[in-house]
Amino acid sequence: MALILSFDNLIDQNIPAEQSDEVKKYIYGWIPKQLKLSDDCSNVASSIDVELQAYKFNCEPEQLRSPRLVRVAVVQNAIPLSPSDPVDKQRSALHDRISSITALASKAGANIICFQETWHMPFAFCTRERLPWTEFAESAETGATTKLCQELAARHNMVVISPILERDEEHGDTIWNTAVVISQTGKIIGKTRKNHIPRVGDFNESTYYMEGNLGHPVFETAYGRIAVNICYGRHHPLNWLMYGVNGAEIVFNPNATVAGLSEHLWPVEARCAAIANSYYTCSVNRVGTETFPNEFTSGNGLPAHKDFGHFYGSSYITAPDGSRTPCLSRTRDGLLVAEIDLNLCRQVKDRWGFKMTQRLDYYAKVLDEACKPDSKPQIIKE
Amino acid sequence: MALILSFDNLIDQNIPAEQSDEVKKYIYGWIPKQLKLSDDCSNVASSIDVELQAYKFNCEPEQLRSPRLVRVAVVQNAIPLSPSDPVDKQRSALHDRISSITALASKAGANIICFQETWHMPFAFCTRERLPWTEFAESAETGATTKLCQELAARHNMVVISPILERDEEHGDTIWNTAVVISQTGKIIGKTRKNHIPRVGDFNESTYYMEGNLGHPVFETAYGRIAVNICYGRHHPLNWLMYGVNGAEIVFNPNATVAGLSEHLWPVEARCAAIANSYYTCSVNRVGTETFPNEFTSGNGLPAHKDFGHFYGSSYITAPDGSRTPCLSRTRDGLLVAEIDLNLCRQVKDRWGFKMTQRLDYYAKVLDEACKPDSKPQIIKE
Repeated sequence: MALILSFDNLIDQNIPAEQSDEVKKYIYGWIPKQLKLSDDCSNVASSIDVELQAYKFNCEPEQLRSPRLVRVAVVQNAIPLSPSDPVDKQRSALHDRISSITALASKAGANIICFQETWHMPFAFCTRERLPWTEFAESAETGATTKLCQELAARHNMVVISPILERDEEHGDTIWNTAVVISQTGKIIGKTRKNHIPRVGDFNESTYYMEGNLGHPVFETAYGRIAVNICYGRHHPLNWLMYGVNGAEIVFNPNATVAGLSEHLWPVEARCAAIANSYYTCSVNRVGTETFPNEFTSGNGLPAHKDFGHFYGSSYITAPDGSRTPCLSRTRDGLLVAEIDLNLCRQVKDRWGFKMTQRLDYYAKVLDEACKPDSKPQIIKE
Repeated sequence: MALILSFDNLIDQNIPAEQSDEVKKYIYGWIPKQLKLSDDCSNVASSIDVELQAYKFNCEPEQLRSPRLVRVAVVQNAIPLSPSDPVDKQRSALHDRISSITALASKAGANIICFQETWHMPFAFCTRERLPWTEFAESAETGATTKLCQELAARHNMVVISPILERDEEHGDTIWNTAVVISQTGKIIGKTRKNHIPRVGDFNESTYYMEGNLGHPVFETAYGRIAVNICYGRHHPLNWLMYGVNGAEIVFNPNATVAGLSEHLWPVEARCAAIANSYYTCSVNRVGTETFPNEFTSGNGLPAHKDFGHFYGSSYITAPDGSRTPCLSRTRDGLLVAEIDLNLCRQVKDRWGFKMTQRLDYYAKVLDEACKPDSKPQIIKE
């Protein structure tokens, strides 16, 4: 069977016209409008073979606050070279590819851009091998990838979120799964680390790095308060919650996740987080299949294999009112741009009252009780 | 435009056959199989004008534990009489209707049944009026509705979850939004109360009752450990979380929610909770339009009106692996039955590891810090 290119398109193309608006409301919520970009954008996108989609979310005008319009962009891309190629060549090819797509995002007016998880390397953690994969790890402050992102940020006047494999040389050469946040002036604002690490299927990441130790930082940028929830952290509502508690208006969620395992969860979790926490979520996933030189197994009884399966792309953006964009394709490199009004976060809090009614102090108490080693669950028997 | 009867059907009927399995996987996850019921069931269902759907979720066999198969049932129904009719007649009509549908559920082999929120009355909290609506409130222990449910439970050998408007006569005549849990022998196991109360649109419930004070009890029944998250509590991930922490294998979520406000959130939140907490969720919603004798307004700038809008039904059940049934219709009374294996909860925990990686003790600490009145959010500036 042929690979399905996009579930959203399939639904869009097959539902009868007289009902499609209603169905779209059900699937997407209040349907974001297409955002008109220049012809130049389309031309560049097609010349570099990138799918370009752009939307504008709805938000009511207020009397006392002007709209706080921000254009966010997320990038999904396949690795240009094979994991069997030399490390420096692979990294350079990725640097070049991302530089081109970032230039396109700049043309599309993006203020903030987020790349996919450990975007400067193949997602090699399935292999459980050390060299050459750990050679990709870089200093978050002085590594080649951070340097490139600083240049891109300053050149395009854009906040850059760069998820990398970090090597913390000052603290025992420790490896982390990290996102570096760089301001539109090219300065590093800070970094954040992946708080929850998977041990499922080919996701053997706990072989390489531990749960993050930097908390749930929110970065105050020129374009709003942003946070980064890396990959498997999307399965954890408490993780999403703390970014909200710390004041995030946009949470980026860079991923590397494959068909057959998580795809039916994909449209659910980040969207639910946007609803529950009254912020925007921007979901990014790798695309394509990465084939490694040596066989590996995944503790699932299946034969040894050399690839991770198909990274299904499908990047999408959700607003705090639960409306969302369609997904980028499942197969192509893509750039998704959305114009959002940060004012919507507070409007939704005021409207739905989820923050006001969340009883945070109550849950802090009961969670604290529940975590004691001798705690007993509240079970009622007949 | 005609009212859409079911979004799921619409998608099902319009996607080309060669792609429909793939699309269904995306929409439903691992597609639950149809559960074959006797012809007698279909005949009774059509004779009492109830839509009947039945599914069987997938679960792997284990070597040391036998399957723990349970049939769960949820009921959605319109009010048979007008809210302008006498209180006792309205309640009797609802008692009769639910007795018939419960008999059908018994024929379908249901072990546990859950009715919709405050099922013994119209959802009159939009009005902000006191009499006659508060007359519907009953003792959870000795009220007429609980008595009926005890009879139904014993007669059909079925655990009954009966969400009612409770009058706590022993504690100041206080009104609560409560669910009574009755064992298959007809004994009351206990009760639980709605933990989060809405103040949005026509949902003027905070006029009538406060946030529940019974915690997050889990009821150990002959058919598994169950909990009840009432209505607006579905928007709160911490609420869902605590039922999981207390060991729930199935969480019922009885609702009364209307088109135009929450429908695009409906397939997202309870499903996300099932995934995040490795339990089954059973989502129930009212159906139909309820028209009240007097006009009311909702603080949304719209003209005064006499109805709450359309309760869109669409009840559905999700497994801990994220797979879900299609929804019941948006317009008809319905009974949804699913055969589930409780063993799947632990299998999913072992497979995905969300419990193991959730870092509950860490979040207990940071939430506790975050709740202090002088706490500062973790914000990093350039």
